Amino acid sequence: KVGNNIAKKAKVETEPEVINAQAQEAIEKIDELQTDIDRLNEQASEEILTVEQKYVKLRWPHFEKRSTLIEKIPNFWVTTFINHPQISALLDEEDEDVLHFLTKVEVHEFEDIKTGYKISFHFKENEYFDNSIISKEFHMNEDGDPSCKSTPIRWKEGKDLTKRETHNNSKGKRKHEEPESFFSWFNDPGDAGADELGEVIKDDIWPNPLQYYLVPEGEMDEEDEEEDEE
Amino acid sequence: KVGNNIAKKAKVETEPEVINAQAQEAIEKIDELQTDIDRLNEQASEEILTVEQKYVKLRWPHFEKRSTLIEKIPNFWVTTFINHPQISALLDEEDEDVLHFLTKVEVHEFEDIKTGYKISFHFKENEYFDNSIISKEFHMNEDGDPSCKSTPIRWKEGKDLTKRETHNNSKGKRKHEEPESFFSWFNDPGDAGADELGEVIKDDIWPNPLQYYLVPEGEMDEEDEEEDEE
Ligand SMILES: [Ca+2]
Ligand SMILES: [Ca+2]
Ligand SMILES: [Mg+2]
Ligand SMILES: [Mg+2]
Repeated sequence: KVGNNIAKKAKVETEPEVINAQAQEAIEKIDELQTDIDRLNEQASEEILTVEQKYVKLRWPHFEKRSTLIEKIPNFWVTTFINHPQISALLDEEDEDVLHFLTKVEVHEFEDIKTGYKISFHFKENEYFDNSIISKEFHMNEDGDPSCKSTPIRWKEGKDLTKRETHNNSKGKRKHEEPESFFSWFNDPGDAGADELGEVIKDDIWPNPLQYYLVPEGEMDEEDEEEDEE
Repeated sequence: KVGNNIAKKAKVETEPEVINAQAQEAIEKIDELQTDIDRLNEQASEEILTVEQKYVKLRWPHFEKRSTLIEKIPNFWVTTFINHPQISALLDEEDEDVLHFLTKVEVHEFEDIKTGYKISFHFKENEYFDNSIISKEFHMNEDGDPSCKSTPIRWKEGKDLTKRETHNNSKGKRKHEEPESFFSWFNDPGDAGADELGEVIKDDIWPNPLQYYLVPEGEMDEEDEEEDEE
């Protein structure tokens, strides 16, 4: 019953006198131990970061070789994006037309992986815009607040897909009514903390784009699954 | 325009003949690269796990010393739980009475941190149940499916707090109407994949219980913040 009273005091009034000398000494020692525990946690985070950075470097040459190979495959990226369920939903006919000029995608993780990443899209010369590289990058500042910035797209006269009006022409949208373009993503600062498209590209497509380029077997008809003998 | 047709074929029909020999060779090389990338990812995961396991071992002696010190502080755990906003909401008068007998809490992370953890509650002899240790553990099997198991509580006659009926006596519940007890957690298999109480104890309380035992300064009145000079 006494214990009961002490606990309630601790919550409701927090009278220092309820804590006796022995308990006070124990609290001080726990506080010192906590400093040691915190330091170990920091060391663990640093060592894990070192491992992650090492593997970012080790993976990079493979990604560069992959980019070179991908450039030999016509329409690799537009096909990959069209075959990805989440990205496909963002694309209309005109977006797809532009993405035929996309030759290279790169995802760079910054030194401290926690501080952010950058996605770059390399385009062949095309009739839509003048940029050869369009990128969007996501940063986390020291307070843990996210921010992002994008390359302004230099659209050619009358070609800005992000400024189309809603209209019912023969080229109507595939899946939804909004006139929004895939390229609106580069205008929209959005919720930088959890950019859905950015994370799909970084975490799902970039680690293994080939799986989306190659249509899953289940989607082929039987004849096509067999080796073509021509 | 040719590119446009190829991409649509890739999506709609996936005719193998649209991929020419050079592209086919590139695809095979990308597939080989992907094997290297996958192997690097596995190595990275293993190295990170090794670091995590090292620090689990390095932290453990500090946690054991802390437990010994905590046992010198009357009602450390019941006070800590009452002061924690999420846990406090789960406690009624009778739960608090039982928790006055709680002398030690331990969180063990299993070898592979991803495979799970175990929380043990050590109790002094008490009038509620016969167990001296009650624990709940969470496992992740090889397929990534979660499961959990708890110590059955051997309640003394008429003392089972998880089998009380709803009634309006003078000891009514503090914050809510349900007759549920904190100890119902040990009955409830729940959603083992994301056990909220388990994760609060493991990730919030266990790393630093002292911060909850010591009521934040903001909750004291000014007099109490000054050193007691008696
Ligand atoms: Ca379309
Ligand atoms: Ca109460
Ligand atoms: Mg690439
Ligand atoms: Mg302890």
